[in-house]
Amino acid sequence: MIERLAVIGVGLIGGSLARALKSAETVGEVIGCGRSRENLELALELGVIDGFSCDPAEAVRDADMVFIAVPLGAIARVFERIRGQLSEAAVVTDGGSVKGSVVADAKRVFGEIPPWLVPGHPIAGTEHNGVASSFPELYRHRRVILTPLAQTDADARARVRAMWEQTGAEVTEMSVAHHDEVLAATSHLPHMLAFGLVDALSRMRSNDEIFRYAAGGFRDFTRIASSSPEMWRDICLANADALSTMLARFGAEMGKLSETIRREDGETLLRIFERARAARDRYVDGVGAEGDGSSRADKTPD
Amino acid sequence: MIERLAVIGVGLIGGSLARALKSAETVGEVIGCGRSRENLELALELGVIDGFSCDPAEAVRDADMVFIAVPLGAIARVFERIRGQLSEAAVVTDGGSVKGSVVADAKRVFGEIPPWLVPGHPIAGTEHNGVASSFPELYRHRRVILTPLAQTDADARARVRAMWEQTGAEVTEMSVAHHDEVLAATSHLPHMLAFGLVDALSRMRSNDEIFRYAAGGFRDFTRIASSSPEMWRDICLANADALSTMLARFGAEMGKLSETIRREDGETLLRIFERARAARDRYVDGVGAEGDGSSRADKTPD
Repeated sequence: MIERLAVIGVGLIGGSLARALKSAETVGEVIGCGRSRENLELALELGVIDGFSCDPAEAVRDADMVFIAVPLGAIARVFERIRGQLSEAAVVTDGGSVKGSVVADAKRVFGEIPPWLVPGHPIAGTEHNGVASSFPELYRHRRVILTPLAQTDADARARVRAMWEQTGAEVTEMSVAHHDEVLAATSHLPHMLAFGLVDALSRMRSNDEIFRYAAGGFRDFTRIASSSPEMWRDICLANADALSTMLARFGAEMGKLSETIRREDGETLLRIFERARAARDRYVDGVGAEGDGSSRADKTPD
Repeated sequence: MIERLAVIGVGLIGGSLARALKSAETVGEVIGCGRSRENLELALELGVIDGFSCDPAEAVRDADMVFIAVPLGAIARVFERIRGQLSEAAVVTDGGSVKGSVVADAKRVFGEIPPWLVPGHPIAGTEHNGVASSFPELYRHRRVILTPLAQTDADARARVRAMWEQTGAEVTEMSVAHHDEVLAATSHLPHMLAFGLVDALSRMRSNDEIFRYAAGGFRDFTRIASSSPEMWRDICLANADALSTMLARFGAEMGKLSETIRREDGETLLRIFERARAARDRYVDGVGAEGDGSSRADKTPD
């Protein structure tokens, strides 16, 4: 049971956590915090929070659990504002898509990695943003990754894990570096390719025509290029090492694939495409079994 | 009005053309042709065709319109079988995703580019294959590209255009080389990236874990990697020049983007992501206006 939860950043992610815990009746009071008073008033009206402050220092006072759900580039400022303001019992976790940068920010602001900080990342989202889109089931059957450190207090870690389990999420733990590598591969790299592809096409001669002839597969493929540019700049900067390494390697592989096509090596092409299809089908089967609702799409070429 | 249409390859693409023309009452008789008698019997039973032969030479006899909808790698063999078998009035078109290879095949088999050949490409498909999935509305509001050549007879070109217009498609014309470039950019390159990404991840250490943490964006992005490996090998071989050039250029751009991330150049990243988002939103608005039903998805990061 959480007596007083402070949610710093009341949008889809923060709002859905508050709603989920309220729905599970495992939280007493929820205090929201953010820069926009209008948004906080909306959250209050929607019953997502029970009170608010625009000042993190005030919002975390007497909270036993603090969830930071602001953009990666704003986490250090939140740390600065809450330094010395937390209660004795307080545990702090976050929802940042990169964990190395959060830990580095904490070390810089607090002078050490605080035992009460449990870095986390719920792998969930929808195509909508904002507190009005939040809902209590967002985390159900989704994965939440925690990246506790050697310095992390065992009780703090258990309390954050218990909180996420109450939302219906499946909680797993891994190291900070491993998290950032896995996410670079499965989320950050695909976003770079989608942004890069759309950008490259938009700079081609007759780009209007090119987009006009793009069909369904292209639309699916580039949907993530409509994501927030600021958020993705922050993610790139926060995960620069893992992501730039992976992107350089992928670029080189595409150069090799280009050579394979140029020398018309059909056997190698077939082997690559078969391996990829098998891996994706295995993966889709895997998540399908968890009730994901996704199904294999054997697209005809556009 | 087409008196006798021969459809070589009665699957989703060929079957849907037959159904559309029957539905528009602009075709007399449809003769199907393919290697599988079982499939042709199913097509007959479904009313998609009115008769069939497993031999293209026989199927095209007395046909005034021939539509070849077989995989790219099989088109030359169809040309060989129908050589000298066409009636005086016959016009031939096809549905291949690459046009340069079809024209080269024709030149090799017929010794010249025949005036009665109008190369074409309907930009349409669904996630299902086979004649059982064919339906008369597949081409409605979709684009069909024709790539007539200097040698192409004006009447043949007009008759193929009229046929596609009767399906509800929007017919446009461009050169063979331009078609292959546009399709390399909008369809073939994205497929290479999706296959390449899934393949790269499947070869990484702890790939099971990687796929386990992949979320919605990744699924959308890699859906096209479940497409037929044989079909994509054929497309790569048929469009090797345009595709390998574009893929090499894209690989090099990803190398540059990797450097931009490594030197933490947030301004350049923001500019690239903003340009890409604007281009995609413009594009989605564009097709949305044509009743495409797609909408912008402002994904939260996974």
